[in-house]
Amino acid sequence: MSLLVVGSVALDDIEAPAGNVKSVLGGAACYCSVAASYFVRAQAVGVTGDDFPQAHLDFLASRGVDLAGVTRAPGRTFRWGGRYHSSLNQRDTLFTDLGVFERFDPVLPASYCDAPFVFLANIHPTLQRSVIDQARAPRFSAMDTMNFWIEGERAELERTLSRVTGLVINDEEAHLLTGESNLVRAADAIRALGPTTVIVKRGEHGALLFDEAGIFAAPAFPLREVQDPTGAGDSFAGGFMGALAAGGSLAVDAMRRAVIYGSVLASFCVERFSLDRFRTLTRAEIDERFEQFRRLTSF
Amino acid sequence: MSLLVVGSVALDDIEAPAGNVKSVLGGAACYCSVAASYFVRAQAVGVTGDDFPQAHLDFLASRGVDLAGVTRAPGRTFRWGGRYHSSLNQRDTLFTDLGVFERFDPVLPASYCDAPFVFLANIHPTLQRSVIDQARAPRFSAMDTMNFWIEGERAELERTLSRVTGLVINDEEAHLLTGESNLVRAADAIRALGPTTVIVKRGEHGALLFDEAGIFAAPAFPLREVQDPTGAGDSFAGGFMGALAAGGSLAVDAMRRAVIYGSVLASFCVERFSLDRFRTLTRAEIDERFEQFRRLTSF
Repeated sequence: MSLLVVGSVALDDIEAPAGNVKSVLGGAACYCSVAASYFVRAQAVGVTGDDFPQAHLDFLASRGVDLAGVTRAPGRTFRWGGRYHSSLNQRDTLFTDLGVFERFDPVLPASYCDAPFVFLANIHPTLQRSVIDQARAPRFSAMDTMNFWIEGERAELERTLSRVTGLVINDEEAHLLTGESNLVRAADAIRALGPTTVIVKRGEHGALLFDEAGIFAAPAFPLREVQDPTGAGDSFAGGFMGALAAGGSLAVDAMRRAVIYGSVLASFCVERFSLDRFRTLTRAEIDERFEQFRRLTSF
Repeated sequence: MSLLVVGSVALDDIEAPAGNVKSVLGGAACYCSVAASYFVRAQAVGVTGDDFPQAHLDFLASRGVDLAGVTRAPGRTFRWGGRYHSSLNQRDTLFTDLGVFERFDPVLPASYCDAPFVFLANIHPTLQRSVIDQARAPRFSAMDTMNFWIEGERAELERTLSRVTGLVINDEEAHLLTGESNLVRAADAIRALGPTTVIVKRGEHGALLFDEAGIFAAPAFPLREVQDPTGAGDSFAGGFMGALAAGGSLAVDAMRRAVIYGSVLASFCVERFSLDRFRTLTRAEIDERFEQFRRLTSF
């Protein structure tokens, strides 16, 4: 089973109470592919500049990520800088240099077009739709988006939403997209736009899954130390989509377990800067934390 | 089994998107006692002014709340006014008129002194400690507090904390009390002050229980409509303490189930203004929602 992942490949500068790092591996496609790689073969689609270190590509390849869809363009890689406040719940964007990502036009290698599971990370909704058009018949396709597209490209976004099975966004985006301050009604409104499955990410408060079966609430794993929240949402999406693709079932129980796996991957992601935790993380550690989630929630 | 509850008896003015109400029944002792009344006999300790409507006392009595400890003093009942923002997550205090509550000095009727379970709602920590001194030997005593005492009466608060088994506070208070932005470390720090059980309430994000057994995460019940969040925390405490007292066990499983019962009572509380939902709520509805919590969290 494979999972197609489209999104940014980036070099990040991060300032956080635990330290500052510069030009580290980042980008939604990287976080999502690597998180998914513990479950399935991830087929990444993205673009790097000619300044992108080979060592980062080697790391992605070492996780089994298929890089046939990652092209190299003349120019600079997408760079993003962020500074986290002491609570880690708030961050300021210090800069966004799109570089070669500005002209990103995802083209699927022929070997990707039959991917049964597809995740469209946060890119222009028109590009997300072009990927759906290229994929032949995914069994389950989900997307992320952001306030920029919700406010500036609503018509395109709604056209794309009508083409996917799932939407994975955060609570602020859910409110912005629907005008509903109540999350249950917001999820109803989103499902009326197309996606049958809506996952609302709430950072340290966990995630909510809304689908035909009702509502499932997953907590975030309570961590004693968080170094860098960057990529938590994309790691969640990768763990969720990867676990779903590996199981091959879209039944209620499979969805719920996949949400927990997403939460597990997000919880590991934030323990270190960049994707560093994934450099040592094992599947056994993932399964152990999955069981810790049972103890965390059982009554 | 009985539960002793000490706290405010109030008349509230509430402004919320769902409407405005004036001079309605409120106060921590009322919310907590009535929520607990579905499980045990609640023995309330509080004070009203001579303007307090008999109908409110009749309602409390109809829920089986023991009012022997509720005295009537010359003057006005404690009055509080609050306005909720459209998201319901933020509120402004419009006014606080302490009235007779300013000179509140809780005296336990002799019939209360053997209460095995005690809840000290948010009042001056010195008064909370005077109640503990009057209670002979509670098996489980828990308290709430607020930023006002944390910032202004820390020494007294710490003396009181060293005398109780449990602390039930919200996340902002936990951060303020400990200086820890990380909730796991904040709970560690609070437990070092005395309470073996710490419950952190996070409003619409649920509650976390920290004790020797580890961490338990309970979601809030996702509601399609919330009229008035006032009293949710006190209803949580009442449901939690009531269920704990009714079961008589302090074992891990009993604690966790009690947290869910607290969450159930809080979820009903906010469906209507004031304590109005409790005027019709039945134990069968409570047990049905408890089972809905299982479906909400099981995977």
